[in-house]
Amino acid sequence: MSLLASATNTQLLSVKLLFQIDMEPAINVLVAQFKTFASKDGSSHTLSKEEFQTLVASQLPNLVKNAGDPAVIDRLMSSLDENNDGELTFQEFWQLIGKLASTHGGFSQ
Amino acid sequence: MSLLASATNTQLLSVKLLFQIDMEPAINVLVAQFKTFASKDGSSHTLSKEEFQTLVASQLPNLVKNAGDPAVIDRLMSSLDENNDGELTFQEFWQLIGKLASTHGGFSQ
Repeated sequence: MSLLASATNTQLLSVKLLFQIDMEPAINVLVAQFKTFASKDGSSHTLSKEEFQTLVASQLPNLVKNAGDPAVIDRLMSSLDENNDGELTFQEFWQLIGKLASTHGGFSQ
Repeated sequence: MSLLASATNTQLLSVKLLFQIDMEPAINVLVAQFKTFASKDGSSHTLSKEEFQTLVASQLPNLVKNAGDPAVIDRLMSSLDENNDGELTFQEFWQLIGKLASTHGGFSQ
């Protein structure tokens, strides 16, 4: 890996974009990132509101408008938290990303 | 980019894995790959059964067991094709990836 050690972050980032990434690695990223943010309070299986807010601001800054606005997070959280337990399961969270992906892809809802 | 021109594919591939990819690029991959496979018959908004079979075999070889088996594709297709029009919309397809991601992540269904 020494060949690449001196490459700047930007160069390496653009290397990534050069290469088509397949679906499975992309799915792995979504699972891994969900677990990373969900595990801040110990349980990596659900997102608390605080964890959800941190995730949205950090991971979805372009797909979620006003990602830093607590009112936006409240609205999103209540629309997704089907069983109203104040936590988001992976499935509940997956519905959000599906809507964002669908809108982003220009697919009719 | 010349610094990297001589790097082998394997080195560049592992560079990708070195770097945590954020959720938005991963979502972009899923949208772009769906459109790539869905556009083979002209319309890039839905997957025909043939397009779906090609996508699963190529993009989900590990997450879908026996991805090359037509009977597996038939079962998957009928379980996803909610309006039974022989085509999969992005939303219908998104449900499949959600189940695969959920199982892969060890989240209860």
